[in-house]
Amino acid sequence: MSLPPVLDQIRIVLVHTTHPGNIGAAARAMVNMGLGRLVLVAPKRFPDPEAGHRAKGGLSVLENARVVDTLDEAIADCTLVVGTSARTRKVDWPCLDARDSAVEMITAAAAGRTPAAVLFGREDRGLLNSELQRCHWQLNIPSNEDYSSLNLAMAVQLVAYEILCSARAQQGEMAEDTREWPSSAELEYMHEHLRQVLLDVEFYDPDNPGLVPVRVRKLFTQLSPDAHELGMLRGFLSAIQNALAGRSKRRGRSGESP
Amino acid sequence: MSLPPVLDQIRIVLVHTTHPGNIGAAARAMVNMGLGRLVLVAPKRFPDPEAGHRAKGGLSVLENARVVDTLDEAIADCTLVVGTSARTRKVDWPCLDARDSAVEMITAAAAGRTPAAVLFGREDRGLLNSELQRCHWQLNIPSNEDYSSLNLAMAVQLVAYEILCSARAQQGEMAEDTREWPSSAELEYMHEHLRQVLLDVEFYDPDNPGLVPVRVRKLFTQLSPDAHELGMLRGFLSAIQNALAGRSKRRGRSGESP
Repeated sequence: MSLPPVLDQIRIVLVHTTHPGNIGAAARAMVNMGLGRLVLVAPKRFPDPEAGHRAKGGLSVLENARVVDTLDEAIADCTLVVGTSARTRKVDWPCLDARDSAVEMITAAAAGRTPAAVLFGREDRGLLNSELQRCHWQLNIPSNEDYSSLNLAMAVQLVAYEILCSARAQQGEMAEDTREWPSSAELEYMHEHLRQVLLDVEFYDPDNPGLVPVRVRKLFTQLSPDAHELGMLRGFLSAIQNALAGRSKRRGRSGESP
Repeated sequence: MSLPPVLDQIRIVLVHTTHPGNIGAAARAMVNMGLGRLVLVAPKRFPDPEAGHRAKGGLSVLENARVVDTLDEAIADCTLVVGTSARTRKVDWPCLDARDSAVEMITAAAAGRTPAAVLFGREDRGLLNSELQRCHWQLNIPSNEDYSSLNLAMAVQLVAYEILCSARAQQGEMAEDTREWPSSAELEYMHEHLRQVLLDVEFYDPDNPGLVPVRVRKLFTQLSPDAHELGMLRGFLSAIQNALAGRSKRRGRSGESP
């Protein structure tokens, strides 16, 4: 059985990994499941012999891993970003289990919503809330709630396995979705634009925001706008700003720059 | 969400493991997925500090692991035995993927077919054919066929994950099956009895058996007799032997001892 081409559109992003052995084991786990694109955000020790030792047949993926300084660089071009998380957050983010996440990702990727990324956080703390909030949803791996702390590479293995299973199940199905999807960077411009407008309209106190910004972000993340819808949103935000500035008559329909 | 009680009926059996780190990582993977019963068949190095180091929160499972000399001791009381395998065999054994295997195991266990065991072979060679043939079916983990060699603990993690998912999905469903299931030891008596009868009737040449014994074994494995059916089979085999010995009139209906 050959590997579904869609797997090439899925990126595994390890954020601030401490142990190089986990990076190597993750690379092997990826190759075992037909994934080849690994991005490392500010790993503590890399390259490192321990990573190579654990990678075994995944060495080429390890050697071709892209190392970047920030999460932004890792996912700027991604149109779908999913963050793994075991913990419950103060504000619950949209959440799917590993299987449903894989089905959604593969369905979206097969329809052209690529590249897609799955983020895995630090060994000790996972993803920060601010990182998780860059994600379209959080991916939860079913586990024993009395001891749900999976080894990092094990989590990569499980997610990659579900992605391969889903890709094989869907292999050959035709894409029906012809929409274009905004990149993570474009979504971020929108969120920043939105935040600015919320402050402009004094929706909340910037010195004491509480959970408001997060709840707003969640709402617009769940909206998951396509490129056209995002343009509309941005136009709407600009229109608000223009109106506040009394420029609505001068510029007419607003532009989309931040 | 509490752990389904059926998980307590599932045993993980590691056969001739070489690296203690893999045993420790497997123990952690088990606990992450709510499994607690670990049996080690002739591990090369155990106990070992490396196993404890990798076990993390799975330490109690590691410490309570049962260490035995032979596979027989590990599974004699099991009524369902499944063997993980990545390789294709000369004689293809009944095969299910990890997900279907988990569903079948949990369905059977919920119906009282317990204890059940999943066998994992050596790091370098997996299970021997003779070990695989002790299994009701082989469990195959979907993977990249160009590099399907999963780390042992990763394989345990994936299988345990599927078992937990399946157990949660089926939690609360009522068992309908009231049959009793023979233990692995009782099945083995039957296979030995059968082999003897096949030789008695010169079904094949013991000095040049070819694949015949394996094919026969496969057939009767797929039959998967319950305790009552097994008794019938044994009675039938005894009847054949009695007839061959001209004792049919003396003993009437045959006993079931080997």
